[in-house]
Order: sequence, then structure tokens, then C-alpha cells
Amino acid sequence: MTSDTALIRPFVEAFGEVLSTMAMMECTTGSPTVKESHQAQGDVTGIIGLTGNRLKASLAISFPRAVLVDIMTRLFGESPEEMDEQVSDLVGELTNMTTGGAKRLLAEAGYDFDMAVPAVISGEKHLIDHKASGTTLVTPVHTESGDIFLELCFEHKA
Amino acid sequence: MTSDTALIRPFVEAFGEVLSTMAMMECTTGSPTVKESHQAQGDVTGIIGLTGNRLKASLAISFPRAVLVDIMTRLFGESPEEMDEQVSDLVGELTNMTTGGAKRLLAEAGYDFDMAVPAVISGEKHLIDHKASGTTLVTPVHTESGDIFLELCFEHKA
Repeated sequence: MTSDTALIRPFVEAFGEVLSTMAMMECTTGSPTVKESHQAQGDVTGIIGLTGNRLKASLAISFPRAVLVDIMTRLFGESPEEMDEQVSDLVGELTNMTTGGAKRLLAEAGYDFDMAVPAVISGEKHLIDHKASGTTLVTPVHTESGDIFLELCFEHKA
Repeated sequence: MTSDTALIRPFVEAFGEVLSTMAMMECTTGSPTVKESHQAQGDVTGIIGLTGNRLKASLAISFPRAVLVDIMTRLFGESPEEMDEQVSDLVGELTNMTTGGAKRLLAEAGYDFDMAVPAVISGEKHLIDHKASGTTLVTPVHTESGDIFLELCFEHKA
């Protein structure tokens, strides 16, 4: 659990679990790579800060609209016309649950985290630029309605 | 220091101080009000999560582009043509320094905070929707080149 890429794995694992149990959606995940551009790769992004005993971090999960419509349809049987508020709540909840799951997995590896308050960003072509001394890693999560991108930026404490 | 509006004051105070010392820009501040819409009121927003002994929070500072051009001009003597990266760094730095300043002020009032990693959001008409059980308060900060909006959302621990 010391390499940078090892730190993103619990988030990816927890996200797959949340997607499967809460949104009834199966996924496969790609390998984490270093993020080069600031372009958010989805239309709606959930973002949350974490502070810990050994590092601090920021998690962003970026969803294409098609995936969110698919999840809403699976959950509610139909895709609401005016779904902006529900979509925002859904993305906030998925972000929160994923972080909670990863927090438990990381605690087993000796990393204790406190979670801040999630925020949901939406808007065409929004950019997210994490400001940390450490690396920003991104992992694609493939679903049948599109790719979700899970991004983790972190900074080791001195 | 128990009312909700009292919690945003140290952030506003620290921001005014940072703006004056780092960006050489004077400001006056309005009264905090409850945020009703999710529309970000600026073009570039710095956001940071905080976790604490008594509450957790998220701070967003939303800048209109004109104010950022003004600050860049004050700092560097000219407004760079291709300033996206510098603007993003500047907003990240202003967000970080403001939070650091507020953290010190709040510590005197018995609130201990850890700061997560700041992220900078840009994009036309981006929306930011804080997901907390508590209130989101917004305070306008008036400068001669436009209004900056400082937004604080928080959740008291059970």
C-alpha cells in the first residue's frame, strides 16, 4: 500500500461495489494513469476532500450524462424529464458512499481518513484542476452505457 | 462563535487579508445570506474541503474573470494572453491561503480543522451544489473590478 497507484485501488473497488449494489450496474475497470489534462471527462462530477494521518487527498468521480440517465432509469423505472436536482443528489450520494467504502478499506492498511462535504459540479466542458504537490491519477470505469472516470489526487504529509 | 453566520466570518476576514497582502487589492464585504441557487457566481471557482473536531465544511471562492485579470495585472504588470494555467494556480493559492488564515482564526475559537487539497473549477455557467445536511452561506466580496463570492457549506458533527 505504499505505491501511488495502490492508493487509488480501494476507491475504484469501493466505487464498483457501490455501483453494483446501489445503482444495480456492473462495471469493469481500466488501469490508473497519470492525468495530463484538466478537462473533466464527464458532464457531472462529484468531488470530495479527505484529510488523513499520512496524507490528504481529493477524489473526483466524473459521469457522462448517458450513464446517469441509465442509473436513474434503473433506480426509478423511468428517466425524469427534469432530473437536474435528482442527478445532483445521486452523484453526491455515489461520491459519499464510495469514499466511505474506500475509507474502510484504507483503514485496514493503516490510513485513517476524515471525509469533508461532497460537492457536485455540473456544466458543459467544465475543467477540474487539483492543486496538490502529488500526482493525480485517473482510472476509467467502463459500464454498458459509457465510461465513468475516477480521479484521485493526493499529497503525502511531510 | 456558535451561530452559523459566525462561522463564515473568519473565512471572509482571512480572504480580505489575503486579497490585500497577496493580490494588492482592497475589498469591502456584504452580509452572508443563505445560498438559494446552485449557479456559481463566477467564472473560476476554488474549492477545498475541511474536516474538524466539531464540524466538516467545504469552502468555495468564485471569481469573475475580470477580477482575475485585474489581480494578474497587479501581480505581473501585464495580463498574460494565455493565462489559464496561471489563473488556475492563482485561484488555488488564494483558496489555500484563505483557508489557512481562517483555520488559525477558528482555532482560537475552539474549532480545529484539517485542510484537504484544493481544486479549481472553470467553465462557463458551471454549477456547484454542496451536499451537506447544513446550510450553505454566501458572502459577496466587492472589489473595484467586480464581485467575488465566498461560499461556505458545513455540517455539524453529531
